[in-house]
Amino acid sequence: MVQRVLVIGAGPSGLTSIKACLDEGLQPTCFESSRDIGGLWRFKEKPEPGRANIYQSVVINSSKEMMSFSDFPPPAQLPNNMHHSQVLLYLRLYAQAFDLLQHIHLQTTVLSVKQTPDFAVTGQWEVETERGQGQREVETERGQGQREVETERGQGQREVETERGQGQREVETERGQGQREVETERGQGQREVETERGQGQRETHVFDAVMVCTGHFTQPHLPLTDFTGIESFEGRCFHSWEYRSAEGMQGKRVLVIGIGNSGGDIAVEISRVAEKVYLSTRSGAWVVSRVGQGGLPADLVGTSRLHVMMQKLVPSWFNRMLEKKLNEAFDHTLYGLRPKHRFFAQIPVVNDDLPARIISGRVQLKPNVKEFCGSSVVFVDESVINEVDVVVFATGYNYSFPFLPPALQAKCGYRLRLYKHVFPPGLTRPTLAVVGFIHGLGAINPLAEMQARWATRVFKGLSALPSEETMVEEIQKDTTGMHQRFSCSDRNPLQVDYIPYLDSLAEQVGARPNIPWLLMKDPRLALQVLLGPCTPYQYRLEGPGRWAGARQAILTQWQRVVQPFRTRVVPQPETRPSSRWRIVVVFSGVTLLCCICYNKPLFRSPP
Amino acid sequence: MVQRVLVIGAGPSGLTSIKACLDEGLQPTCFESSRDIGGLWRFKEKPEPGRANIYQSVVINSSKEMMSFSDFPPPAQLPNNMHHSQVLLYLRLYAQAFDLLQHIHLQTTVLSVKQTPDFAVTGQWEVETERGQGQREVETERGQGQREVETERGQGQREVETERGQGQREVETERGQGQREVETERGQGQREVETERGQGQRETHVFDAVMVCTGHFTQPHLPLTDFTGIESFEGRCFHSWEYRSAEGMQGKRVLVIGIGNSGGDIAVEISRVAEKVYLSTRSGAWVVSRVGQGGLPADLVGTSRLHVMMQKLVPSWFNRMLEKKLNEAFDHTLYGLRPKHRFFAQIPVVNDDLPARIISGRVQLKPNVKEFCGSSVVFVDESVINEVDVVVFATGYNYSFPFLPPALQAKCGYRLRLYKHVFPPGLTRPTLAVVGFIHGLGAINPLAEMQARWATRVFKGLSALPSEETMVEEIQKDTTGMHQRFSCSDRNPLQVDYIPYLDSLAEQVGARPNIPWLLMKDPRLALQVLLGPCTPYQYRLEGPGRWAGARQAILTQWQRVVQPFRTRVVPQPETRPSSRWRIVVVFSGVTLLCCICYNKPLFRSPP
Repeated sequence: MVQRVLVIGAGPSGLTSIKACLDEGLQPTCFESSRDIGGLWRFKEKPEPGRANIYQSVVINSSKEMMSFSDFPPPAQLPNNMHHSQVLLYLRLYAQAFDLLQHIHLQTTVLSVKQTPDFAVTGQWEVETERGQGQREVETERGQGQREVETERGQGQREVETERGQGQREVETERGQGQREVETERGQGQREVETERGQGQRETHVFDAVMVCTGHFTQPHLPLTDFTGIESFEGRCFHSWEYRSAEGMQGKRVLVIGIGNSGGDIAVEISRVAEKVYLSTRSGAWVVSRVGQGGLPADLVGTSRLHVMMQKLVPSWFNRMLEKKLNEAFDHTLYGLRPKHRFFAQIPVVNDDLPARIISGRVQLKPNVKEFCGSSVVFVDESVINEVDVVVFATGYNYSFPFLPPALQAKCGYRLRLYKHVFPPGLTRPTLAVVGFIHGLGAINPLAEMQARWATRVFKGLSALPSEETMVEEIQKDTTGMHQRFSCSDRNPLQVDYIPYLDSLAEQVGARPNIPWLLMKDPRLALQVLLGPCTPYQYRLEGPGRWAGARQAILTQWQRVVQPFRTRVVPQPETRPSSRWRIVVVFSGVTLLCCICYNKPLFRSPP
Repeated sequence: MVQRVLVIGAGPSGLTSIKACLDEGLQPTCFESSRDIGGLWRFKEKPEPGRANIYQSVVINSSKEMMSFSDFPPPAQLPNNMHHSQVLLYLRLYAQAFDLLQHIHLQTTVLSVKQTPDFAVTGQWEVETERGQGQREVETERGQGQREVETERGQGQREVETERGQGQREVETERGQGQREVETERGQGQREVETERGQGQRETHVFDAVMVCTGHFTQPHLPLTDFTGIESFEGRCFHSWEYRSAEGMQGKRVLVIGIGNSGGDIAVEISRVAEKVYLSTRSGAWVVSRVGQGGLPADLVGTSRLHVMMQKLVPSWFNRMLEKKLNEAFDHTLYGLRPKHRFFAQIPVVNDDLPARIISGRVQLKPNVKEFCGSSVVFVDESVINEVDVVVFATGYNYSFPFLPPALQAKCGYRLRLYKHVFPPGLTRPTLAVVGFIHGLGAINPLAEMQARWATRVFKGLSALPSEETMVEEIQKDTTGMHQRFSCSDRNPLQVDYIPYLDSLAEQVGARPNIPWLLMKDPRLALQVLLGPCTPYQYRLEGPGRWAGARQAILTQWQRVVQPFRTRVVPQPETRPSSRWRIVVVFSGVTLLCCICYNKPLFRSPP
């Protein structure tokens, strides 16, 4: 019977996996290689190899209601599209609310995960870890938000805590093997952590099950060999993974290659200080704004279950309608952006400012690069730009799971060979799950959470997987569908339709909302579920993991959307008589007019 | 008879005034106090007192076709909304094309302009100037664009020109009174000018007429006394006039006061690096984007003469329609921006990115400031923000004409007491004109150009002014209308309806397009003039100053709009059969179906 579960990584997927384990009465142990939780969302002043990185200005593409965990609505006052520091704050609040931190071992790297010799009977895994890696880190954090103190228990640990006047507090910890940590806290939320380590400490553990939550975006893909003459380029040249801010780009001539979300963001940001920014793209992209109809978050409008039904019924029309809307905002053909693929075939570029940067010439679209000649760049249309100072390769990411046995990393088309993107089918016992390694047209948190809920129920035997053959067949069928449905490639990762995929996993968990039943039982709620944004709370209305607050969370979601705007309250403009009243007024007027014209008094007493 | 005309200032208004003088056979002499032409559009690394300043990232609000001079369409490859460096380039091209530079005396400040003793007879002006002011400037310019070498002729001038290998060229000029200039040019368009002066040289001149082209935005309005407790604020605090870039704002908490175009721009820009930006506004604003319907420049769509007619006929409906459209993009009430005034009552804030910065919480709207308490700021809604590091006062500008006799600076309501915003009515001879001191819902260049064309014709006696009484009456009437029509105040400067004002001056010049006549003579052109954007070329189709290229400029304006987008050419998407064809197809199909159903063969031979 599965009891002890290893969770690898303490990013969003790892956190929700710990939570899922606890909900199912399992004992999670999470190893996180870095010195803090948050994964991608922990901003690193300098990029750390093997880890996901973000730049200083990152704002999340999904709105808070769509990226939240299903039983933890974001605080109302947080903005709809949060800055990375606020996403991290939300994750800290989540970890705190469900007491997840005690299960997390920071600065502990998983070196290998192997089946135990008796795996066929026990389904257990032998896990080798290393604590500390001779690394030295100094981080200063200043803010009003949450502060988590990483405490690691172990052999030879020594802690000295000093608190001085003016809110200054110092904690010095000394552990075995030369590890030393000094943490200083001054007034006003400023925090400094200095960590110095000697040599890593290796350990071996045995777990009943493993959840792999190591995420994407850790291995930059830098295809220099694809660019003829790049060796003759003398300027600065780096992958977007290394990008932190536009500092140092003042007055430079910059070429950004690739129009994913990073490429678009970086081009726009640099264009504010650079002399000129060129944005080269092979295939173009559909560009959407975070600001949707009426200024509401774009992912909250037009993404209801009703829309999903329509999209399923008339996919081509739905694509066309959306593309028409986007082209009304700005013509993607005129702007040199129109891709060959349809809107829903690829993750769009979320960028609020790119059109304005293009119309002002601060960012200039270019086709694919043909070759470099010193500081000049030739494009496939034979146009040339000269005196390029900097090239940013926003060319996407590879992925790797160096700690897993190679058999578990097998691919099927452009995806990992995983049943429903979670379970490798070849294991005699389903005790290993990959969580959060998926791309849908929506936030990763709800996807990872649902995967984790399902995986833990499979671990416990509450939900059964089909036979290996069936799973392999399903994977193959899924992959074929995916390749037909989406514009796939190694680094164009759209794999699943967001809501249908969530529903299919929720079906397994037993948490899929039963809308016909809801329409009879609670019509107000049902209409919100059907016609409102498909927020994750819908998956906590019934079944295992039901949350009593889910109904309220759905009914109050628009209040939380509106709240952060209320920093300068403007009185509502005078409302004009409603259209119903106008109809009544017009109808009465016309009747009166008819009466007068035909000389038939309204209130003539009957003869 | 007027011959020698003084033009004060070599910004856009000054340049077009010189051009207007030349077109009318007058002899212009332009005194420009700084070391280069361009006025506002010459970016200054450090703000220069008494001069208009822009920040590094400024992009012009008007599109190039709407801000161009009427006989000088902008180069097709320039972007639609130009960076300030490109606006300056356009001005240099204009000056070069019409050989204006030879009439400009740089680094010559006008100290006073007085009527000569025989003014009543001659209409002449006595002008005192000063050359050089002991200032030392070093400027480095690097780019591919135009380079103008300021040559100043005078007494004791010496020039040494050295040209070395690798495109390096040095010109050393020594003039009387200790003035020395070293200009170095290296390869790749890099330019350095070092100017060193001893003491200013004073001169007195007599001119037949004067055109005052000294512009707006030279005297920052910093109303510190209006802010209780500001003296207790310990952070940095400055007027937007001083703002250059977001450098130094990293991680800061910034309050921007005032939501004019500068306030909006600065808040958005700083929000990319700051910890938090608050934008305080008393009255709110309508916010529009540069990117209009379909991605075309917003000021090119919906600003035709037909629209102007509609606006005149049903102003309230037109306001409502526009406001509805803006609210569809984002609800100004929800965003805390909705002002009390109607759209056309005030110059809107042009900002492409503000909504996205608000939805992501990077910029937070706040109401008016009530008071400062140290580093805390209290607003009128009693909300408080703490730990403010920087306050930027984007509180607008005052204006002054220190060189003019006070009588010529008289005000009427919130405006200068000038007939049609150009001529002071009290002069016995109309030989002084103010050019470019006006605010309309459109670019200043075409307004200033039309004023200059009219003024020079008045100078020459080709166009007569009414009597002083009539002018005073008209000014009073105009002012009353202006105060009713617009939301006026000292620093809310909307004064005229753009196209009607241009038309009224064009009427005086004799250059107003005669549309009924045009409809008969050249319907294709007439439709463009009536239904297309009201570009300035329309005022060169007929009458004095007629330009042979005007027709072609109008008919090719959309080509120049599209051209700068063509840096990555995307094939037009496959067109679907046109609606007419669809009707034919559907109609035929229905007919065929009816025939089959009713068993009436289509081609049955008659019995």
